[in-house]
Amino acid sequence: MAGKRRAVVLLSGGLDSATALAVARDEGFACHALSVAYGQRHSAEHKVVEVRLDAIGGSALTDPSIPVPEAPTSGIPVTYVPARNTLLLALALGWAEVLGAWDIFVGVNAVDYSGYPDCRPAFVEAFERLANVATKAAVEGHGRFRVHAPLIRLTKAEIIRLGHRLGVDYGLTVSCYQADAAGRACGRCDACRLRREGFAAAGVPDPTPYLERA
Amino acid sequence: MAGKRRAVVLLSGGLDSATALAVARDEGFACHALSVAYGQRHSAEHKVVEVRLDAIGGSALTDPSIPVPEAPTSGIPVTYVPARNTLLLALALGWAEVLGAWDIFVGVNAVDYSGYPDCRPAFVEAFERLANVATKAAVEGHGRFRVHAPLIRLTKAEIIRLGHRLGVDYGLTVSCYQADAAGRACGRCDACRLRREGFAAAGVPDPTPYLERA
Repeated sequence: MAGKRRAVVLLSGGLDSATALAVARDEGFACHALSVAYGQRHSAEHKVVEVRLDAIGGSALTDPSIPVPEAPTSGIPVTYVPARNTLLLALALGWAEVLGAWDIFVGVNAVDYSGYPDCRPAFVEAFERLANVATKAAVEGHGRFRVHAPLIRLTKAEIIRLGHRLGVDYGLTVSCYQADAAGRACGRCDACRLRREGFAAAGVPDPTPYLERA
Repeated sequence: MAGKRRAVVLLSGGLDSATALAVARDEGFACHALSVAYGQRHSAEHKVVEVRLDAIGGSALTDPSIPVPEAPTSGIPVTYVPARNTLLLALALGWAEVLGAWDIFVGVNAVDYSGYPDCRPAFVEAFERLANVATKAAVEGHGRFRVHAPLIRLTKAEIIRLGHRLGVDYGLTVSCYQADAAGRACGRCDACRLRREGFAAAGVPDPTPYLERA
């Protein structure tokens, strides 16, 4: 595998980032997966860097006093975590610089979660621009960082079809905001609803162990 | 104090960030100080958020296998921590959004540490631009984030004179990269040398307890 370009892939344990990893592999990158535990409710994920974002709070995902919504809401959802993707990409950028990687993959998606400001193309472009003035590697002219968001304009069904074609085992991914310790999904929250509808629309069998049927 | 605008101030425990805090207070902000423990060697600092950047390594400040330099070096120093200020500002931005603050103060300085890419005006401007596309508060049009770097173009002597005028007690700050548990400075590293020269040039008495005299 000598000569393969390295990439850092942000991996949350969910469906989208698993698909982004499959895309990065398919494009020939040697992938280094980075998972971040930021005090979110479910944490069956592989932990590499721990950031106690629950010290800051302000989101249903990190603050137990804010309930996780079980119905679609208008506007930016309460599951928005302030500056989360800025932080995740900052950690990925730091690791990429240490590894000598110039490519960062992130599974953000602007379609289903159009409410999240840090899932939009404008955000990804602004971060890429920042990365290239923030780092020793870029400023010394050794290369240029690129932030890949291969799912950003896809629907959930298109993401699932893409990952299915690339061999992703979605049974190993967890989307639910309040999965139990065994990784079983509640079947009721926003993330479960989008996942379930995505598999149905994609015509791909849904391997998710939901605790509650639709 | 009702009606005062809030600001998040990144506080490292060092001389520069203490001065930035004094400037923010002098400008009338209600200040919320944020300290981040990122696995750096000295950690006498007030801890709010812990990020295990030593898991990533790549710097003399977070990797015990890389020695802290004791003489000036050319180019970007080995004490550069990959993407550190991107990460610190991301945490400050998240907290600012939760607090309803629009102002972030950071004590970066482009003069003495011109080697650090993430201490330059171009970096601060790129982060400010990112902040205003990354966050719910800005995207919903409630205001505009501003990153203040009041020391960015000052020499160390100018910073010390400014802080001295504003009443900063520099005896409470630690600049040394390898201070001991009691906060005593080594007197030999790059940061000690810059600090010592700064007090001398400013004509302000240096209250630092150096273990080794110049």
